[in-house]
Amino acid sequence: MTKQEIFFDDIERMDAQDPLANKQKEFYLPDNKVYLDGNSLGPLPLVAKQRAKEVVEQQWGDDLITSWNRHQWIELPTSVGRKIAPLIGANVKPDCANQVICCDSVSVNIFKLLATALSINSNRHKILSQSDNFPTDLYMAQGLSQLLGNQRCELVAVDEASIESSIDDSIAVLLLTQINFRTGKVHDIKRITELAHQHGVLVIWDLAHSAGVIPIELDNWNVDFAVGCGYKYFNGGPGAPAFIYAAERHHANMQQPLSGWMGHQSPFEFNANYQSDAGIKQFLCGTPAVVSMSLLDAALDVFNDVTINQIREKSLALSDLFIRLVKQHACLKSLQLITPLERNNRGSQLAFTHDQAYAICQALIAEGIIADFRAPNILRVGFSPLFLSFKDIYRSVETLNRIVSEKIYENEMFQVRQAVT
Amino acid sequence: MTKQEIFFDDIERMDAQDPLANKQKEFYLPDNKVYLDGNSLGPLPLVAKQRAKEVVEQQWGDDLITSWNRHQWIELPTSVGRKIAPLIGANVKPDCANQVICCDSVSVNIFKLLATALSINSNRHKILSQSDNFPTDLYMAQGLSQLLGNQRCELVAVDEASIESSIDDSIAVLLLTQINFRTGKVHDIKRITELAHQHGVLVIWDLAHSAGVIPIELDNWNVDFAVGCGYKYFNGGPGAPAFIYAAERHHANMQQPLSGWMGHQSPFEFNANYQSDAGIKQFLCGTPAVVSMSLLDAALDVFNDVTINQIREKSLALSDLFIRLVKQHACLKSLQLITPLERNNRGSQLAFTHDQAYAICQALIAEGIIADFRAPNILRVGFSPLFLSFKDIYRSVETLNRIVSEKIYENEMFQVRQAVT
Repeated sequence: MTKQEIFFDDIERMDAQDPLANKQKEFYLPDNKVYLDGNSLGPLPLVAKQRAKEVVEQQWGDDLITSWNRHQWIELPTSVGRKIAPLIGANVKPDCANQVICCDSVSVNIFKLLATALSINSNRHKILSQSDNFPTDLYMAQGLSQLLGNQRCELVAVDEASIESSIDDSIAVLLLTQINFRTGKVHDIKRITELAHQHGVLVIWDLAHSAGVIPIELDNWNVDFAVGCGYKYFNGGPGAPAFIYAAERHHANMQQPLSGWMGHQSPFEFNANYQSDAGIKQFLCGTPAVVSMSLLDAALDVFNDVTINQIREKSLALSDLFIRLVKQHACLKSLQLITPLERNNRGSQLAFTHDQAYAICQALIAEGIIADFRAPNILRVGFSPLFLSFKDIYRSVETLNRIVSEKIYENEMFQVRQAVT
Repeated sequence: MTKQEIFFDDIERMDAQDPLANKQKEFYLPDNKVYLDGNSLGPLPLVAKQRAKEVVEQQWGDDLITSWNRHQWIELPTSVGRKIAPLIGANVKPDCANQVICCDSVSVNIFKLLATALSINSNRHKILSQSDNFPTDLYMAQGLSQLLGNQRCELVAVDEASIESSIDDSIAVLLLTQINFRTGKVHDIKRITELAHQHGVLVIWDLAHSAGVIPIELDNWNVDFAVGCGYKYFNGGPGAPAFIYAAERHHANMQQPLSGWMGHQSPFEFNANYQSDAGIKQFLCGTPAVVSMSLLDAALDVFNDVTINQIREKSLALSDLFIRLVKQHACLKSLQLITPLERNNRGSQLAFTHDQAYAICQALIAEGIIADFRAPNILRVGFSPLFLSFKDIYRSVETLNRIVSEKIYENEMFQVRQAVT
């Protein structure tokens, strides 16, 4: 980043030179809004809008139960998994078994993987995680611990600075999120996984805030397991199903406890005894949410003609621009950036603390700039490179500046808390 | 049932006198088909078709992340639960807490409830079930048993005739399905629950094949827990989320292991320690599948102006008619009815065994009569009273008769097995 001041001309040039500029046309975006919350809920791809009509009206409406075969609903978890694979560096070796499957929620999938990892590393019982991990990751470990007892499953949550020094031969599994949901700070998966393996520790990486926006090489980095989200950067729609990655080397020894009929090797034989599928399908449990999963399936096609490196490049450029523009406005000094400035340590979101973060966020939304708030005092802005322009960033910071300098956030209507904040 | 022969005039009179005849107009149904598989996947209600457009285009498309508040996505699991409650006899007492919530799949929910029931009845460890229960019910118990060890969780699966005699003071929890998925036979929930309680056994009733089509009085029958399906008689769409019922008396002592963030008492405070919601919301886990759940929410409105008793009455009349018509055709004697003839013991489906059941089913589908096949040799026909007419039944049996008498099922194209059968 240079320190030179940026003018509107510069912004226009950035948009003109953006190789992803045309991707915006593939989304339905409301008029006159800037959406800085694609990291929380990705917007509607036009292909998903079209697929919604197809899956509801033609597949469900016309073809009814026969769609399980005719429209291959039964294959959806696998086919969506295969679309996600190249975006997270999975299945890269020739003849590799499929290692990714779409199913359930991130939370449910974390439970499956924690139990699986503990069953593989059965002479250990500790789950190491980060105390400011996304809460559901910790909650699922707590639930498993409660169920199994502390002797068989113990959650050890340490602060970020202590993670690496806490990895030792007593740990069964390390559960971390690649990009911190609050600060946007990135973990080095490769290095931490290597360190974990040196101590015989299995790793589960939560890619909720990273899949689809940052290069990930699960196979090359020797990751054991991962989970990720369908409704953030993959734009799969609200509550889109999540995914699981499990390295092929573990497939023969896995045992996940949510052994529902869709994970059976022959679900339609209706045997009384569970016999898991030999591959990644053993992570399936109940009947998949076909409509929601179909939207994700369609949404993933938006990635067909772009590379993750292009996305990452633009993501950093957008956030660099945001940071520079904030710096240009003296009165925005009251916003404290808690995201690392160093590009390698930064995901695709920026977090600023401010006493009035909640009200500022509400005022931004009222002005058409959709950011989000994270308790207790964080204003979070996310950069989804497939639909944001550099002009969008310019407008966002201009608006933010007006709200802060004119203290618009003091208006009562921006102070009232809503159910979801 | 009388033994008098039925003619087409009688059928027309039945339709003319049917108080539910007009409900068919509330569904989108493909032309020239008779859908006898609403017990497997309910058809598309027009309100759900409309809602699909709204939730995708307006809520997701236009309002994006703000829909969690603006369109109350955050309340969906609860509001859908409240719509289901009257259909299963829940929340009937004044000032009763909400006892029903919409979430996840039947399989995942069975796991939550089994673990919950075992934690309440913690000095016992046996799960009693029926060896021909729907397989996923057994599989989930097997998964929990594998996880906890046989000393803490043991599945005892006995044949139907031995269930009542196997209920004793050693059993922690009884897991049964009200209507058998193969035979359509109905369990007497009230009597069996009473017997179980006499021995200190908690009950979990799986209502997958019964909710929405047969009167159920969970509160009055003192049921502890139940699960059920959103995509069968509730017509919520393929893979619609399931539901959980938990009697209010257990709310304070429950502990379910899939403790995801949506079950936390304050999910948006992002605390590191799980503290469950005090009520039924503690059964939530991850982010709900908003699109799929919205379709179910809409679909349930079809029940607004009908009673379950009306539905049950017509369901029995439709299946009575099917049985009588089959009897009128000499060559259909090769089909063996395995569903109980006694009305009280019969759900809303009929099961016939036949060596060529698979091929007969395929031939029926080719003729526009959508039935289904269950391995190894069962032809299953389901009666969803909200959209089927008596004429539909007449046409179905006429077609069945032609297929069997002319041996149309011998055609090679009907013999090839498909992925989902």
